[in-house]
Amino acid sequence: MKLKKNNRAVWANSGKVYIINQIKLPFKEEIFISETYKDTCKAIKTMIVRGAGSVGAAAGFALMQAVSEAPENGYKDFLLKAKKKIEETRPTARDLFAAVERVYQKALISAADAVKEAQNIADETSEAGRKIGKYGNELIKDGFGILTHCNAGSLALVEYGSALAPIIKAYQSGKNILVYVDETRPRNQGAKLTAWELQQAGVPHIIIADNAAGLLMQQGKIDIVITGADRIAANGDTANKIGTFEKAVLAKEFNIPFYIAAPDSTFDKNCFSGKDIIIEERSEDEILFVNGIDEKGKEQTIRIANPGSSAYNPAFDITPAKYITGFITSAGIKKELS
Amino acid sequence: MKLKKNNRAVWANSGKVYIINQIKLPFKEEIFISETYKDTCKAIKTMIVRGAGSVGAAAGFALMQAVSEAPENGYKDFLLKAKKKIEETRPTARDLFAAVERVYQKALISAADAVKEAQNIADETSEAGRKIGKYGNELIKDGFGILTHCNAGSLALVEYGSALAPIIKAYQSGKNILVYVDETRPRNQGAKLTAWELQQAGVPHIIIADNAAGLLMQQGKIDIVITGADRIAANGDTANKIGTFEKAVLAKEFNIPFYIAAPDSTFDKNCFSGKDIIIEERSEDEILFVNGIDEKGKEQTIRIANPGSSAYNPAFDITPAKYITGFITSAGIKKELS
Repeated sequence: MKLKKNNRAVWANSGKVYIINQIKLPFKEEIFISETYKDTCKAIKTMIVRGAGSVGAAAGFALMQAVSEAPENGYKDFLLKAKKKIEETRPTARDLFAAVERVYQKALISAADAVKEAQNIADETSEAGRKIGKYGNELIKDGFGILTHCNAGSLALVEYGSALAPIIKAYQSGKNILVYVDETRPRNQGAKLTAWELQQAGVPHIIIADNAAGLLMQQGKIDIVITGADRIAANGDTANKIGTFEKAVLAKEFNIPFYIAAPDSTFDKNCFSGKDIIIEERSEDEILFVNGIDEKGKEQTIRIANPGSSAYNPAFDITPAKYITGFITSAGIKKELS
Repeated sequence: MKLKKNNRAVWANSGKVYIINQIKLPFKEEIFISETYKDTCKAIKTMIVRGAGSVGAAAGFALMQAVSEAPENGYKDFLLKAKKKIEETRPTARDLFAAVERVYQKALISAADAVKEAQNIADETSEAGRKIGKYGNELIKDGFGILTHCNAGSLALVEYGSALAPIIKAYQSGKNILVYVDETRPRNQGAKLTAWELQQAGVPHIIIADNAAGLLMQQGKIDIVITGADRIAANGDTANKIGTFEKAVLAKEFNIPFYIAAPDSTFDKNCFSGKDIIIEERSEDEILFVNGIDEKGKEQTIRIANPGSSAYNPAFDITPAKYITGFITSAGIKKELS
């Protein structure tokens, strides 16, 4: 299915879940249509949908689908099994767990309540992004060079996004800005998704190797760094895509403001500090191989590293709070969390 | 020709020049055999041989070949023409110019002197690497985790290398070490060449995304950083592959020793500081596209970034001297240059 005009990355209609297929982007714009909760689980697990907010919304919709699939006899058992299956798609995704729990509680009341709750979750996520954009925009001045890492746009947060929301809002407010987009190895979410989203929004941007950010800061080209987050501990320590911490250290070295933009659900009050966050290690193949398109537009996965060597692939890193200037939240800018 | 057992990246025998074909590595191990000085020029120009020291040695051998090709009548004219042609292959390579000049001066005495001088240049470059290895080894303790960036091994410096020489020497001395190899985007010299060289030498190593070095330092896995250099100014400011500066800032943040290993020719006393070094900007295609091999082993170049976006590709950065713990030279470790 070709991409239809919809500002959202994931939405539901008549029991079906529609997801912009992020695996295919930016080379093909396709919508993945899921008719069953298991299909939606597959979409979550295989990264067709990614980004905390969008994954949360998709997970809520998945349990909503399970509600309509559940037999009258063993309704609760079926739901518990479905809940577990959804949770297993991404064992470390807080938004997913929260969304599934919310829909599950409503499903114990009625199917209609579950449907409404799943929709509420998506709407709330969208609204949070809108507010993040509004508040974050105030940090961006005319003429700013902005560095961002990984992807924290509408694809990741249903609509508007977190890190990209202030940037797009600033552009739409008439500010002259240039966004430096870290390609974000090993999965290249910057070069692929952030660049695509900025292009969709018409925002001037340029892709750089992750290695170039230090030089650009040294040259005075970066005025602010804004990234998203996967999880923010109570003390402000922030887990985000591998490489975020490097940019934070560099920003501190050059006294460049470093902001984390995130919706409420990313703030984990039960997590005391970054030391309590386990770093997910992903397959070495993400480093040893890369996928893209050949000159005929055909998808290819090729080996780009020495065949006799292995790779180590931690997916996230922890940026201690002391490197973070502030947090752009849906309730405004917070300089400190505690 | 299959790769024969030879520790050198470039060598000469009976008027022929043998070069490990670095364009084919690490996916194919081939030797480029040059029978004429023009063939050797081609090898230099097309990056079959790369790295300052190896290019210098190849250039010396090229002029040696020209000497044997020169007619008795017009010997000097032929040599001057050959010299110019060799110099034009890499107009900014200092080692190349120095080597060609040395062989040319000897060729004015006799052909035999020219042959000997070309061999001397290769041998001296090799010996410089051996000494860098010997001195640098003293910095590496048993159990060390070592980070390196880009490629500065035997391929680049005829034999032994600069950054890799101490590492390989430490391993051969029986020290238990683990080398973290930055993949070194955008051209992936780390994942391709450094990993291949360490594999050849049997040194335990693992490739990481450039983004992961900060996390590894935070986790205490890195005990020392050693990189090569493209050019070192009189005050110690060092130009090297893009991303080197980021690692240096991170190393400083964690009080991890950060060393630059380089042969004499890399130290440019005529260059006062990093401000005098112009940063080369290379084609954006190096970021937007990547090359490797598909599952059938066939070489492929594929697009890995959003087709509607551009990229900015500075090839080098400058690490100010204050971030550098010391320099590993063929005359020993120097803490300061001036």
